[in-house]
Amino acid sequence: MSLVKPVEYEDALPAVRAVYDNIMSTRRVMSVNNFWKVLANDPATLARTWNEVKEVMQPGALDALTKEMIYVAVSATNNCEYCIYSHTAAARKAGMSDAMLAEVLAVTGLANKTNRLASGYRVPVDAAFLSKS
Amino acid sequence: MSLVKPVEYEDALPAVRAVYDNIMSTRRVMSVNNFWKVLANDPATLARTWNEVKEVMQPGALDALTKEMIYVAVSATNNCEYCIYSHTAAARKAGMSDAMLAEVLAVTGLANKTNRLASGYRVPVDAAFLSKS
Amino acid sequence: MSLVKPVEYEDALPAVRAVYDNIMSTRRVMSVNNFWKVLANDPATLARTWNEVKEVMQPGALDALTKEMIYVAVSATNNCEYCIYSHTAAARKAGMSDAMLAEVLAVTGLANKTNRLASGYRVPVDAAFLSKS
Amino acid sequence: MSLVKPVEYEDALPAVRAVYDNIMSTRRVMSVNNFWKVLANDPATLARTWNEVKEVMQPGALDALTKEMIYVAVSATNNCEYCIYSHTAAARKAGMSDAMLAEVLAVTGLANKTNRLASGYRVPVDAAFLSKS
Amino acid sequence: MSLVKPVEYEDALPAVRAVYDNIMSTRRVMSVNNFWKVLANDPATLARTWNEVKEVMQPGALDALTKEMIYVAVSATNNCEYCIYSHTAAARKAGMSDAMLAEVLAVTGLANKTNRLASGYRVPVDAAFLSKS
Amino acid sequence: MSLVKPVEYEDALPAVRAVYDNIMSTRRVMSVNNFWKVLANDPATLARTWNEVKEVMQPGALDALTKEMIYVAVSATNNCEYCIYSHTAAARKAGMSDAMLAEVLAVTGLANKTNRLASGYRVPVDAAFLSKS
Repeated sequence: MSLVKPVEYEDALPAVRAVYDNIMSTRRVMSVNNFWKVLANDPATLARTWNEVKEVMQPGALDALTKEMIYVAVSATNNCEYCIYSHTAAARKAGMSDAMLAEVLAVTGLANKTNRLASGYRVPVDAAFLSKS
Repeated sequence: MSLVKPVEYEDALPAVRAVYDNIMSTRRVMSVNNFWKVLANDPATLARTWNEVKEVMQPGALDALTKEMIYVAVSATNNCEYCIYSHTAAARKAGMSDAMLAEVLAVTGLANKTNRLASGYRVPVDAAFLSKS
Repeated sequence: MSLVKPVEYEDALPAVRAVYDNIMSTRRVMSVNNFWKVLANDPATLARTWNEVKEVMQPGALDALTKEMIYVAVSATNNCEYCIYSHTAAARKAGMSDAMLAEVLAVTGLANKTNRLASGYRVPVDAAFLSKS
Repeated sequence: MSLVKPVEYEDALPAVRAVYDNIMSTRRVMSVNNFWKVLANDPATLARTWNEVKEVMQPGALDALTKEMIYVAVSATNNCEYCIYSHTAAARKAGMSDAMLAEVLAVTGLANKTNRLASGYRVPVDAAFLSKS
Repeated sequence: MSLVKPVEYEDALPAVRAVYDNIMSTRRVMSVNNFWKVLANDPATLARTWNEVKEVMQPGALDALTKEMIYVAVSATNNCEYCIYSHTAAARKAGMSDAMLAEVLAVTGLANKTNRLASGYRVPVDAAFLSKS
Repeated sequence: MSLVKPVEYEDALPAVRAVYDNIMSTRRVMSVNNFWKVLANDPATLARTWNEVKEVMQPGALDALTKEMIYVAVSATNNCEYCIYSHTAAARKAGMSDAMLAEVLAVTGLANKTNRLASGYRVPVDAAFLSKS
């Protein structure tokens, strides 16, 4: 149960409907997910977040699939149930196979392990890394 | 200053030297980084971790560059200074441009934001995501 | 299902009942939440934690509402389901509107994003910040 | 040492200069912090992030000081050195005393503790919290 | 519902069955937990992870119970529901009483609190700690 | 540089001196660490935190060494530089060898990895774990 009530299309203010319409036409889908319906209680955050998602997740120097897999890796690190489900679905739509998902999570697990070994032992950064920056 | 003293090649046990040699020949470099020198105080963890890095980070369903960028995203999420420097260097060696790094971090930042919006509002997972699993 | 059985008032030791009574009279409620009933298996931690909550969350240099909103922001960052629900309820009781909750979570989301941009890029702390400390 | 070189005003593209000018006039300061100079390598992220900071952190249902204190609490939870220094400075400018900072961090510490007690014991959410949502 | 289907023994490849058999004989149990059944979709990660668990969690300089309690403390810090349940069960099997669990979580809660106080205030590391390293 | 100035013994209020004296006599040392000197700006938090450390970290169902090692594991997970150094020092004083530290960090690393595999794959909790709770 969300902290605030999801806003359905028929009850939405015009500014919210405009965002919903843009999400549906951009993604070629017939409805919007719960994430957007909950954010809609705060129309400014809804619009700002959707615009950022659209801008950041579009193909650029990285393709859309790579970006979605990075999203899954971060969401698994933070244990965000909603985001793991929704971005795994988006990544699969963009072409992620089960074998690719397995590698995303294997790298995520390994990075979370070595992050703690490096931080836990207080390993000093190699001079070579710093001079190259 | 690390919690235990880094182990230099000339002071290393044969089992540690074998790992160092394997790291250097696999990566075609002339020395090993501080991370491995610190882990070498625990030869079993050194060998196990290196074998895992070699196995997980090799090209498979995902190419090596994509894997390194996921590593950077997780390390930035966890704020592991050592890992951010070392895996950015590895990703650059594998072909990551500054424009690609910028997109890795833009996605990482966005995911960390929406992870908290979704978890903070307790957004319920859409039925469609669950049924597809 | 909690790892240890919640302790109901009628089954509680006198030391636990004394804490329950203090919670109920301080908060002017007729029962205590599951958090306290679970902690009650460890009476010393129950008493210590309740005393800390009472001391830290009382109005001081900051009013009670501001403190509850900070609690929500931290709990959303850590994705603690129980704490998000309970401290949102407490904040609402202290006067938090839906518009205020939306701003708490918008700031929380933004801070989680820029935390990763600053840490991910390894932005050096400005000299001005350090000299002022 | 940051992963990419900070962009100084004199070397900045017109689009970046426009953001720098807006930061300086909005905040009535004579220079911009390192965070913005590093982000400037990615002008789209610079503009988007600055616009979000300006929109989210302006007084609304919450005043600017409360928002800055929430920012400090989240940044302390995530251990973001840069953000702790910069947002403590911003909060102080907005009126935060040392006594208020002490309470922000006392609440932050307490919330991080009880978050783990609640999650660690798997305390079930009280029915009353769910029905009120 | 997991992101990939758990693999039951009767449907498993020989390489997966070999790991399942090893888990069951090592732990003297008649079935394997869901964690392994889900990992089995990626046989290399299944084998590597099981071998690491077996090697790291066996008695060494620390006994098995101490190791399981550390696992619980980390899992509570990260709020991993699955791992909290499974490693609490393992710790109890190894002799952890409810009083010991209470102390594990009391230390975990306290450490999460003081971690934020120390990081939030930017307390400088005492020279004595560094010189001893 | 800390956010507030450390309080030296000679400048301390009587209530702060009393805590410093108690720390020094309890630990049989001639001075207090920076953590306490910084907290001393907020005498109530200083006293409350010291009393909690003294109560929680004393031998009980778990011995002092086990508690300090759990503290190190949590601090490494959260990447708290100050706490890693100070609690490693405390654990060594209580008898932790380098081999024991290596195992603490190996378990910490492994737990951080499997936490993300379990959460990332959304592995359902086994019925057996729930029924035993």
